[in-house]
Amino acid sequence: MAIKLGIIGYGGMAHWHRESGLKNVPGFEVIGVYDVDPAKIEEARSQGMIGYSKLEDMLANPDINLCLVATPNQVHKELTIAALNAGKNVVCEKPVTLTVKDLDEMIAASERNHKLFTVHQNRRWDADYLVAKQVFDSGVLGDVFTIQSRLHGTGGIMHGWRALPECGGGMVYDWGVHFIDQICNMVPGKITDISADLHSVKNLLVDDYFMTQLKFDTGVQVMIEIGTFLLKPTPRWYLAGNAGTCQLDDFSGVKGGITKVSKLAELIPPVIVNTPAGPTRTFAPQPPETLEQLPLPSFSGGWSDFYKNVDAAIEGKEELIVKPWQVRRVLGVLEKIFESAKTGHSVKYE
Amino acid sequence: MAIKLGIIGYGGMAHWHRESGLKNVPGFEVIGVYDVDPAKIEEARSQGMIGYSKLEDMLANPDINLCLVATPNQVHKELTIAALNAGKNVVCEKPVTLTVKDLDEMIAASERNHKLFTVHQNRRWDADYLVAKQVFDSGVLGDVFTIQSRLHGTGGIMHGWRALPECGGGMVYDWGVHFIDQICNMVPGKITDISADLHSVKNLLVDDYFMTQLKFDTGVQVMIEIGTFLLKPTPRWYLAGNAGTCQLDDFSGVKGGITKVSKLAELIPPVIVNTPAGPTRTFAPQPPETLEQLPLPSFSGGWSDFYKNVDAAIEGKEELIVKPWQVRRVLGVLEKIFESAKTGHSVKYE
Repeated sequence: MAIKLGIIGYGGMAHWHRESGLKNVPGFEVIGVYDVDPAKIEEARSQGMIGYSKLEDMLANPDINLCLVATPNQVHKELTIAALNAGKNVVCEKPVTLTVKDLDEMIAASERNHKLFTVHQNRRWDADYLVAKQVFDSGVLGDVFTIQSRLHGTGGIMHGWRALPECGGGMVYDWGVHFIDQICNMVPGKITDISADLHSVKNLLVDDYFMTQLKFDTGVQVMIEIGTFLLKPTPRWYLAGNAGTCQLDDFSGVKGGITKVSKLAELIPPVIVNTPAGPTRTFAPQPPETLEQLPLPSFSGGWSDFYKNVDAAIEGKEELIVKPWQVRRVLGVLEKIFESAKTGHSVKYE
Repeated sequence: MAIKLGIIGYGGMAHWHRESGLKNVPGFEVIGVYDVDPAKIEEARSQGMIGYSKLEDMLANPDINLCLVATPNQVHKELTIAALNAGKNVVCEKPVTLTVKDLDEMIAASERNHKLFTVHQNRRWDADYLVAKQVFDSGVLGDVFTIQSRLHGTGGIMHGWRALPECGGGMVYDWGVHFIDQICNMVPGKITDISADLHSVKNLLVDDYFMTQLKFDTGVQVMIEIGTFLLKPTPRWYLAGNAGTCQLDDFSGVKGGITKVSKLAELIPPVIVNTPAGPTRTFAPQPPETLEQLPLPSFSGGWSDFYKNVDAAIEGKEELIVKPWQVRRVLGVLEKIFESAKTGHSVKYE
């Protein structure tokens, strides 16, 4: 059964879904578009789709088997529930909604109507993440003690509704939800403690810089830092364990590498060296020949895998990958991040 | 009045004081050395100093006007108090001692005997710190929201008593005490919250990796990360404000720079760009001509300034720079770091 999509909200992301996200999904078709803006409806019609000015009309079309909710965040809930109640499966854009309480109503509507409900956490298929997760899972780093995930931009300003608190704007909801979803999908164990620091550096109404620390009961500590106004680039990923360190420079998934200590190092006794930091043995520069550089693993897959799985899950052929309970766990982290930033102290979680 | 020094504990650091720390201090002289190791006493004698096997003998020498305590940390307290009670001024190596309670006894001995007591927090004169502090103080970065201070080593193993908990070993006491002293001397305001994560990566008995976050009531957030087994180098300093970003690559104080956005950037409207991370406007690559690169400021001074100030403070000509109450504040932060790591949650401070 191929995907026959009805789009709710024909903005930038909906265009991306149609042109990129669904590109390699066999037999998909976008049947119709609902939007509050007549210009968007007209655009959809000019592209060969049915343009709807009333949501119930689109939801009454029996040819549509899946709805995409790609509106500003504050109306995800009502639109998702309306589509589920009309018997449609639903893909909702991220962040799914602004509170766990609202999400529970969406999950209940999915269960009541026996319809698939998932969220477009497509960054589980980003190249850099696929590589970082492989490195983590492979054990090449030994016991990993710190994972650092960063996005530093220079643009400063956030745009449109993403700069408005009432729409769920800000970096925690916009990009944080992705990076936390990645971590929750990569690191085993429970999150015991969350601390966070939020700033409005260039956007007065929403957070455009945040740093959060998640402590796992396995001892792994995760640091996520995202900012729109950090003018010196830093690596996308930094993972360190007791057997090696991995760095991924950017989103490409091919720049960076893994460093380990070679057997040779054990044969060279450490000596005190005078450095610009003073005399030191522990921090003496390591002879390059005692460090071993390994390439990053290669990766396969990409963003279309999200929709391929949705397609197969609707048909009962595959387990759904982005599960509502996972999305609920991530949204819970976001709530604790806001709580920690507000109180100025760390907050317990799972 | 020139410094006439009596050294208590003639190990690696005492040698450094004699050969480097005191080098440019006019008229200084090392009169005597006390050590528990006969070989060290012999060495001191062969270098023209008086070698003492009994502390009270050295403290009875009226020519000595200053004692340096450079032993393992767990005996700093008793040796410092003995020297103060004998009427000597005292420079104690860092960490001054292991608890605030013990430090209070040392401060009381100083006040009771009306003798100068200070701690060798010489990294206030490190080149990188002198530059970072100048950048922070100058306002060139605007309102600074994050300061990140890092030391990543590859050696793994800590050596001698620095690897033993009963001697106050581990990275928090060894290097953390310096980096926190630097931050306390740079960032105004009170520290409201401290969270920390400690690991024993290559040293089973003490912390050899830690990351701590200090929140200031002014909104500045500080992150300090020190590890002995992080095999990818990262910059020594990263400071970001709403008007620019500064990076210092290493301890030299000359590598790195300041980046700001040029006036030109305001004339170029942001556009959505397709990147390996997907379509983005906020994180679109900035045209290089819209970024302005400024050099780091130059610095003057160095490690000998510590002893020059001690000399002048003993004579009443200058205010003591490294004040006991400052050292007490830093040691309080260290106690909270250990508490946070133990409880797994952040801890309130000032």
